Amino acid sequence: MPDQTVPTMRPAFAPWLSRSNDVTSVFLAAGQVPGLVNLAGGLPEPSVWPVAELAGLAAEAIRSHPDETLGYGPIPGLPALRDLIAARFSTDALRLSRENVLITTGGMQALELMGKVLLQPGGLVAAQSPAYLGALDAWMPHAPRYRPMRIEGNDFDPHAALAGAQFAYTVPNFSNPSGRLVALPERQALVAAAHATGTWLIEDDPYGALYYEGEPLPRLLELSAGARPGPYDGPVVYMGSLSKELAPGLRVGWVIAAPEMIAALATAKQGSDMCSSGLSQMLALRALQAGITDRIRPEVLAIYRARRDALCAAMQAHLAGDLDWQVPVGGMFVWATARDPRLDTDRLLHHAMAEGVCISPSSVFDPEGLDRRSLRLNFTLNPPERLEEGCRRLARAIRAALAETG
Amino acid sequence: MPDQTVPTMRPAFAPWLSRSNDVTSVFLAAGQVPGLVNLAGGLPEPSVWPVAELAGLAAEAIRSHPDETLGYGPIPGLPALRDLIAARFSTDALRLSRENVLITTGGMQALELMGKVLLQPGGLVAAQSPAYLGALDAWMPHAPRYRPMRIEGNDFDPHAALAGAQFAYTVPNFSNPSGRLVALPERQALVAAAHATGTWLIEDDPYGALYYEGEPLPRLLELSAGARPGPYDGPVVYMGSLSKELAPGLRVGWVIAAPEMIAALATAKQGSDMCSSGLSQMLALRALQAGITDRIRPEVLAIYRARRDALCAAMQAHLAGDLDWQVPVGGMFVWATARDPRLDTDRLLHHAMAEGVCISPSSVFDPEGLDRRSLRLNFTLNPPERLEEGCRRLARAIRAALAETG
Repeated sequence: MPDQTVPTMRPAFAPWLSRSNDVTSVFLAAGQVPGLVNLAGGLPEPSVWPVAELAGLAAEAIRSHPDETLGYGPIPGLPALRDLIAARFSTDALRLSRENVLITTGGMQALELMGKVLLQPGGLVAAQSPAYLGALDAWMPHAPRYRPMRIEGNDFDPHAALAGAQFAYTVPNFSNPSGRLVALPERQALVAAAHATGTWLIEDDPYGALYYEGEPLPRLLELSAGARPGPYDGPVVYMGSLSKELAPGLRVGWVIAAPEMIAALATAKQGSDMCSSGLSQMLALRALQAGITDRIRPEVLAIYRARRDALCAAMQAHLAGDLDWQVPVGGMFVWATARDPRLDTDRLLHHAMAEGVCISPSSVFDPEGLDRRSLRLNFTLNPPERLEEGCRRLARAIRAALAETG
Repeated sequence: MPDQTVPTMRPAFAPWLSRSNDVTSVFLAAGQVPGLVNLAGGLPEPSVWPVAELAGLAAEAIRSHPDETLGYGPIPGLPALRDLIAARFSTDALRLSRENVLITTGGMQALELMGKVLLQPGGLVAAQSPAYLGALDAWMPHAPRYRPMRIEGNDFDPHAALAGAQFAYTVPNFSNPSGRLVALPERQALVAAAHATGTWLIEDDPYGALYYEGEPLPRLLELSAGARPGPYDGPVVYMGSLSKELAPGLRVGWVIAAPEMIAALATAKQGSDMCSSGLSQMLALRALQAGITDRIRPEVLAIYRARRDALCAAMQAHLAGDLDWQVPVGGMFVWATARDPRLDTDRLLHHAMAEGVCISPSSVFDPEGLDRRSLRLNFTLNPPERLEEGCRRLARAIRAALAETG
């Protein structure tokens, strides 16, 4: 038995670990705190999951396709699922084939693979600001520099924003955390800048199916489709997933991009997890073929639209004096900014937890961690009465936080 | 529509991509070539998978645990599965709790997370030589330096090997590719060196259940258990998976290590894929609880033992003049070295493919890519008559390769 009385020095962990945060972990764990109203995180409403149907499809997938579900699969994903995604996103102008598609282990893996294939220390990322926390997590080991893009600002210059960056990161549909929809002229300008500069343009689109009003705007991917024959070869790297449309537990996402990018991402995936779960992929394929996502979408939209309205009404009733916000047209979040500049939303989080409500402070969506004026509220997980109770508690927490500032 | 007639310069991919190989991809694709005898790769025999039982368990897991199977789960894994793994590997001397266990998306992810938390550019890895190709893939983006460890050599000095390395990498049970079993004295010496130097010691153990003769040797993890109370806090980082014991398609693996290492790996996993598939984890939990792996193991061992014997008999009949090898006591591979120094096994691969047999050349198991004297043959995927046919073809390919050298 080794002598453990003399402690030995262990090698240091990589420096990025000391800069990392435990916010996602706190969000995922907040669901376990009794009585807490969880307005943080971005969790879906579980009652919309077609449980019995998925159970039947899972059993049938294993029984009829044991090799594909239980064996190792091709690194870029099951061919039939890649083909289905290619067909689903093709349009008259946008020609996609299997070579344009990589299946990932959830949307998060797509982000991490992009970092792996493009980022070197000091590399530059142009990121829509405020930025998705998970993307910042995924790229943290590479310690990139960030150039913030305020796409909705009057002075936004897409060409200057993209020039010299390894890639630009956008969530055009109901950005996490801001809930904003990037308008058509800005979409066109971003795509034109990507073509002109050569910079890869990520279109992260987890919320693209969650439009509560109006017609969906064209994707950057569609706007970037060229006149040349053959499969898509443009600069947009589109990322989708089944987490919001079907169920996050499957961990099935996809990237649609130029074949050279898909090949590079597949090489990176080989060293990340070899291949995604065959069972999950086959279940996703069967669910899409059976039209489940299309069938449950009206119910999902009705529930989420009503909850968005309930949250915004409760905010109007309890928080209008303290916060400013815009009602989002889709997605899962309302972004609110404190009217009083003394309100530090990092401090507010502690008061909120004491009052029994969890929110996401703006600092976690800022690569520098400096923005402490805003917060993100999720409306998809809780029913209307809980959303209202959360707003009541948040109003009390704001009183307490402001009282602390004197 | 953007003008695509003027090509734009795209940002360069990260340099490691130009050093990467497509060998794993070729191995996984070799299964699709008609008539090819695939002795490369490390694929299991699919007939041992308990298909109907897993189909029933999958449906039942979704129906009875929709939140755990279809929702986001905790980053380090389902608590019940972590507890089961902790209990399964605990002994009288080795006390493991949930904090010692991280669930990963297959064994490959465990390797990639280790790189993320420990490796910085130029970092040093002491690696058992020849080394598992997948580990080299996982760490390639970090461009580590490698210090080869020939553990079976008479002059092997574990203390000198481990000193100054961020971690040491070993596969003590039937190493991939060499098939070697690290003997007890070397195990003890490695563990003592890890305690003395502080260097983390990876025990990668995908083949630990595949002993065809004799009693399993104690794990490095067990040998490293200390006299102190409380959960394990030693330097061994143990990696296991269900890929060989049950089915690789689930992509369920685990790491057992000191709580500080588990916490660091979980932070890295947050930015890699958020959490592993809840469906896969719950299915793994149910399968382990139902004792399926224990029940199918005798059949798995009988099939693989017979195939090992068949391959070695066929090698004796057809290849004894050209190759030297040791009969492995377990695992999935026979490692063979050319008697004639003119035989370059990279060149041999091309001749072998022309003859209809696929093998793994030694260069891919060497971080420098220089070792071209040996090759790895897999015996788990093919029945005896195919193994013999593969050896006949390989003998012809060796003739052709040697004729080419003149």
